[in-house]
Amino acid sequence: MSQPKFLSGDKAGIDEFLDRFDVFLFDCDGVLWSGDHMFEKVPETLEMLRSKGKRLVFVTNNSTKSRADYKKKFDKLGIPAEVDEVFGSSYSAAVYIARIMKLPAPKNKVFVMGESGIEQELESEGVPYIGGTDPALRRDIEPEDFTNIANGSMLDPNVGIVLAGLDFHMNYLKTAIGFQYVQRGAQYLATNIDSTLPMSHSFFPGAGASGAALEKAVGKTPVSFGKPSQAMMDAIEGKFKLNRSRTCMIGDRLNTDIQFGIDGKLGGTLAVLTGVSKKEDFLADGAETVPSAYVNAISDLLG
Amino acid sequence: MSQPKFLSGDKAGIDEFLDRFDVFLFDCDGVLWSGDHMFEKVPETLEMLRSKGKRLVFVTNNSTKSRADYKKKFDKLGIPAEVDEVFGSSYSAAVYIARIMKLPAPKNKVFVMGESGIEQELESEGVPYIGGTDPALRRDIEPEDFTNIANGSMLDPNVGIVLAGLDFHMNYLKTAIGFQYVQRGAQYLATNIDSTLPMSHSFFPGAGASGAALEKAVGKTPVSFGKPSQAMMDAIEGKFKLNRSRTCMIGDRLNTDIQFGIDGKLGGTLAVLTGVSKKEDFLADGAETVPSAYVNAISDLLG
Repeated sequence: MSQPKFLSGDKAGIDEFLDRFDVFLFDCDGVLWSGDHMFEKVPETLEMLRSKGKRLVFVTNNSTKSRADYKKKFDKLGIPAEVDEVFGSSYSAAVYIARIMKLPAPKNKVFVMGESGIEQELESEGVPYIGGTDPALRRDIEPEDFTNIANGSMLDPNVGIVLAGLDFHMNYLKTAIGFQYVQRGAQYLATNIDSTLPMSHSFFPGAGASGAALEKAVGKTPVSFGKPSQAMMDAIEGKFKLNRSRTCMIGDRLNTDIQFGIDGKLGGTLAVLTGVSKKEDFLADGAETVPSAYVNAISDLLG
Repeated sequence: MSQPKFLSGDKAGIDEFLDRFDVFLFDCDGVLWSGDHMFEKVPETLEMLRSKGKRLVFVTNNSTKSRADYKKKFDKLGIPAEVDEVFGSSYSAAVYIARIMKLPAPKNKVFVMGESGIEQELESEGVPYIGGTDPALRRDIEPEDFTNIANGSMLDPNVGIVLAGLDFHMNYLKTAIGFQYVQRGAQYLATNIDSTLPMSHSFFPGAGASGAALEKAVGKTPVSFGKPSQAMMDAIEGKFKLNRSRTCMIGDRLNTDIQFGIDGKLGGTLAVLTGVSKKEDFLADGAETVPSAYVNAISDLLG
C-alpha cells in the first residue's frame, strides 16, 4: 500500500486532491469539532468546498442526535448545513428496520437503549418503540424487578428488536430488560459500536462501550450501522446517488472513518489529526488501514 | 479426554468418587441456590460431606458480597457455613492489591466500580478506596462533568487502581471516571468477568457485563480474580493448605468453575446441571472443557 500524501501546506497537492472528487463525506466529531468546541476555520473550509461545487454529506455515528438535532448543532456552532446533508447512525438503523427488516406488526416494536435521537429517527420512519428516554426505566433495579423481568411480566410481548446506541443513561435495569428480550428471540441491533467518544479534548465511553454490557451478556456482536458498516454506505449511496470513484471520505478514525471509505471502494480517503488516530497509526510499517492523504486539521485544505 | 461419569442414582459410583477427595470447592450460584431460591436438600448434602470429614470451601465470583455478607446468605437460607469457609472474588482482589501489588501510599487508592462487598474486603485488607457505593456517583452525567473529568478536577490524584465488579448501579458517569483514571495510568483490575448471573430462574448481566463498558472503552481485558483465574486458586491454596490432587471443584459453569479446577490441576471436577451449562455442552464431540463427573443436582450426592 502506498504511503499517504501529507497535504498540509502543499497548495498544489491540495488542489490536485480536491479536483479528484465531487462528493465529500465528512465525519463530524474529531473533524469539524470536539464536543462543543469547533475547530478553526471550519465554516470557511466548507464554504471553499461548496464554492468549488462539491457536494457535502455529514456522516455521523453519533446516535444520540437525530438529523434535525444535528442540524441544530451545526447552527449553534455557526456551520452552514442542511438537514438533508446529515446522515446519522440512528437514521441508518431506522431505515434498515422500516424498509429492509419489515417485521410484521404488531411484533415489530423496538426496545431502545439510547437517547432521543434514536427515538426521533424511528418515529420519522413510523417504527413503534419503547424504552429509550422513558423516565420509568431511568432508575435502579429493585429486587422485584429480577422476578418480573425473568417471568416476562415487565416485558412487552410485541418487542421484536433491541436497538442499542450511545446511552448516557445506561443502567443495569435497561440492560437486564434488553438481555431478556434477546434471550427470548428479539433481533439485536446497534446504531454503532464506537468504543470511545471524543469530548472536551479527551475521550469518553462511546456507543460500543455504553452498549457493551448487553453485548457481553448476549455473547455476540450486534448488527450495527455506524461506520465502517457498509449498510450505512449503501444507504448513503441510495439517498445521494453518488459516484463512489468521485467520492472522498474525510475522518479522524482509521478503524471507522477511513476503513468505511476503503471498504466502500471510494475514490479516496483523507485523515485529519484532530481526533482519535495519530499519524504514527497509519505511517507505521504494516498499518492495516491507510488513508490516501492526511492533513493536520481540516482547515489546512484552505491552503 | 474421557467421558465424564454420570453419578446421579449410582450409589457405588458416588461413594467411590467422594472417597477420592478431602476438600470440595463449591461454586454457590447455580449449585447451592439460584438467586434467593435454595435447591433441594442442600444442607443435608453438605452435612453428609462434613460427616465424612470433608473440608468445604465456598468459592464465589459474586463480588457484590463480602465473605461476611455471604455468610448471612447461607444463614438466611439455612445452610450451615463459616465465614472462613467463604472465598470470594472481592476478597481475592483485595488480597492481591494489598499483599502482591503493594503500590506505595498515597498513590495506592482504588476507584471502585461495584457494590459494598468490594468495599468491605478492601477495608479488611486496609486498602483505601473511593467510588463504590458513594451516592454522589449514583446520578446522571451532566454537561459540566465532561469538562471536569477531562481536565482532572473531578479526579483524585492518588487513585492508582480501578477495580470493577458486578455493579447493579453501573452508569455512564462512573464509567467515564474509571476510563479517565485508566487513561492516566491507573492499573485496571476486575474482581471477575462472568458474562451472566443466574437469578430468578433466568439470566441477568454479570460482572463481565456491568464492567464491559469500561473494558470496551479501554480496549483491553482487565486482570481478574474470579474463576477460572488461577490467581484465585493460588490464594485458596495458600489459605487452606490444600492438597490439589485430593481436591474437587464442584460447579455449574464449564468455562469458569470446571475450567478453574482443570487449570488448577485438581484431582477432579464435578458439574451440576442446575445452572448455566447443559450436559450437551460437555458431552459433545470436541467439547473443550469436560468435568470428571456430573450430577443432575448437588443433592444427588446423597445417593
